[in-house]
Amino acid sequence: MHGLIGSMSAAPGRRDDLIAILTAAVSNMPGCLSYIVAKDTKDANTIWITEIWDSQASHDASLSLAAVKKAIAAATPMIAGFGDQVVTTPVGGYGLPAAKPR
Amino acid sequence: MHGLIGSMSAAPGRRDDLIAILTAAVSNMPGCLSYIVAKDTKDANTIWITEIWDSQASHDASLSLAAVKKAIAAATPMIAGFGDQVVTTPVGGYGLPAAKPR
Repeated sequence: MHGLIGSMSAAPGRRDDLIAILTAAVSNMPGCLSYIVAKDTKDANTIWITEIWDSQASHDASLSLAAVKKAIAAATPMIAGFGDQVVTTPVGGYGLPAAKPR
Repeated sequence: MHGLIGSMSAAPGRRDDLIAILTAAVSNMPGCLSYIVAKDTKDANTIWITEIWDSQASHDASLSLAAVKKAIAAATPMIAGFGDQVVTTPVGGYGLPAAKPR
């Protein structure tokens, strides 16, 4: 499995709009097991995104999906910056989603 | 919802042992929607834990569960340190688990 943990900073006042675009775009990405959007509780502009994919190739391929490209274009003007992104290998725990049928 | 994103550093050579303890202990915590353990891909000792709870109260209460207290006692000697922990409010996306019946 391939995991990503990262943050982005919304332009002031645009966090909810940015979240709406992100959450609407991610429901049908092949190989995506989980894509969770969360608000930072300390910073009013920061969003955290945690992702689990069956492989890095599936993640990379998602960037070419029409719905994702459209979402990126819509979201870009609302993004003030990105934090560091961590690449992980999820290995277990509770609530790890099963792979989606392809 | 209540989310946590954090890292810990295992004592050298103990990451797999630490992961085994963590993943075994977290399957039956009331109010826990997700507790995913992942290996950092760049640092051989680092573990990332991403958690989603129905409330902060459920998370806090989990620390008093016998299985969790036992796991903490077993894990502590294998932990070299902790990274910063981020507190979030998960709001949506794909693969967000449903609340577990209580």
